[in-house]
Amino acid sequence: MNELELIQNLIPMLPTNSAVVTGAGDDCAVVDVGLPDKHLLLKTDAVVEGIHFTADAVGSAVGHKALGRCLSDVAAMGGVPLCAVVTIGLPSGFEFERVRSIYEGMANLARRYDVAIVGGETTASPERVFISVAVLGTVPKSACILRSGAQPGDAIFVSGTLGGSMAGKHLEFEPRLRQGQWLAARGTVHAMIDLSDGLATDLRHLLDASHVGAELLAEAIPVSEVAKKRARQTSDTKLAPLTAALTEGEDFELLFTVLPSDAVPLLDAWKAEFPELKLSCIGKITAEHGLRIRDRRGTRPLEEHGYIHFE
Amino acid sequence: MNELELIQNLIPMLPTNSAVVTGAGDDCAVVDVGLPDKHLLLKTDAVVEGIHFTADAVGSAVGHKALGRCLSDVAAMGGVPLCAVVTIGLPSGFEFERVRSIYEGMANLARRYDVAIVGGETTASPERVFISVAVLGTVPKSACILRSGAQPGDAIFVSGTLGGSMAGKHLEFEPRLRQGQWLAARGTVHAMIDLSDGLATDLRHLLDASHVGAELLAEAIPVSEVAKKRARQTSDTKLAPLTAALTEGEDFELLFTVLPSDAVPLLDAWKAEFPELKLSCIGKITAEHGLRIRDRRGTRPLEEHGYIHFE
Repeated sequence: MNELELIQNLIPMLPTNSAVVTGAGDDCAVVDVGLPDKHLLLKTDAVVEGIHFTADAVGSAVGHKALGRCLSDVAAMGGVPLCAVVTIGLPSGFEFERVRSIYEGMANLARRYDVAIVGGETTASPERVFISVAVLGTVPKSACILRSGAQPGDAIFVSGTLGGSMAGKHLEFEPRLRQGQWLAARGTVHAMIDLSDGLATDLRHLLDASHVGAELLAEAIPVSEVAKKRARQTSDTKLAPLTAALTEGEDFELLFTVLPSDAVPLLDAWKAEFPELKLSCIGKITAEHGLRIRDRRGTRPLEEHGYIHFE
Repeated sequence: MNELELIQNLIPMLPTNSAVVTGAGDDCAVVDVGLPDKHLLLKTDAVVEGIHFTADAVGSAVGHKALGRCLSDVAAMGGVPLCAVVTIGLPSGFEFERVRSIYEGMANLARRYDVAIVGGETTASPERVFISVAVLGTVPKSACILRSGAQPGDAIFVSGTLGGSMAGKHLEFEPRLRQGQWLAARGTVHAMIDLSDGLATDLRHLLDASHVGAELLAEAIPVSEVAKKRARQTSDTKLAPLTAALTEGEDFELLFTVLPSDAVPLLDAWKAEFPELKLSCIGKITAEHGLRIRDRRGTRPLEEHGYIHFE
């Protein structure tokens, strides 16, 4: 049983209550605690040594990634992160300097977005460091963007460039909080998700939640320079630029769908607001289910998928 | 460096913001998001296979403990838990039935207190299962009870019985949510903490936060039947009944201090409200710092301490 099958089996078991607007299955949970104009967002995510980072990764980068993953999910709802709690599991012979560095990376990122770190838990973890972070945020009720709102005809956009993240970006990425909030305020975004497992997998999550399909334009998918350069130096087809962009994951960019009439105005407004961050229109939402990709040779079903734990 | 020293070194590094009422260092963080009458509570806690439970522990009991630890912390603030998110790390060959059982234990406890489980993260953890839970709750602003409010002269109370938890209670305990909320509504409780690391350690946390000391009455400390029975069968002085009650931890009972004039009325009211749960007055708060214990031989400084990770 892989991670996706596991989650599909567990979600129906989870209890809910009257405060829950959106439970398990989106980037964040959405909870109504009675604020007139805001919902709360709640998210947890974890990084494990040897899985999400190597034992020789710089501590501050590990801490940055641990918190940044959660902030990326808050960004994908159009939300504002407020505070975080941190569980850290440590082998008994840990060096304080490394733990301090991990916390420094978290604290620096937190300060940049005025996020408080309000508590945590330290525990023994004999073989390897693990860090689980939970973030509480808010989102204007009128602006919250789910995965489930994509409509046939929507234009599909992605921020930044994709592929090759393991060369460094996965430890240094900037969560797209400013962009997510700006998009949410614009009011024309129908659905959004952050890219953690790879475009091919994460787009499928969005399509499933919205009960629609999509057609991607191969040439429009923004492949990172790192992935292109690496592809020139190898004959491994798994590392071909397009495959890398579709499957490698850990990009932490925003993928979203927008009212087709806003596609061109959005590109212009984005360029004015975020001149240093690429925005690409990579395809369209279709009423027909399934995910297809079009290139010079025609249109084919997309077979690739991204990273899945336990496979 | 042990766990307590680690935490003392990390807390000053943590960023805060204007929403934080009480950050790291109490049972839960207290956050003001603008609700007129309530604060939010946020807490995370973790259980690790081989540390907090054995590999052969029943799955549903492991899940119960993982969520119950956080609920016990919400209880110690006088709060009401609202929803939870769960990170679970699993070895690649995990059995779905065990994971299902862990979630069933969490879900059953959650339902009993109308707590929604609103999301989670599954990840690989090659050697052992770990589970980190974060809980969001609320507390009436006027009722929130911190560790820091104890005053000289206060009577010290503890619910239930202590010691011997590892014989079974640590996997089956009932978080004292009803009692915590009832105490908070009473308005005479000055400080409260839940007992996870053992009375000797957790009381010290409360004393440090309140800048006071305490004198315990050895005879009044409620030792569990399990700990007494075990002590009769061994000559190991570490397992003497009083030592067990002071140091073993994982009791998940409430320790609190109350206005001395309310000590007797509280005992009567408790007996009427919770006839099946023992309540014991075990000593008093002193202006003089330090923790002392009085028995037939006189008063001595208490040297014992509870469970500390990394020691």
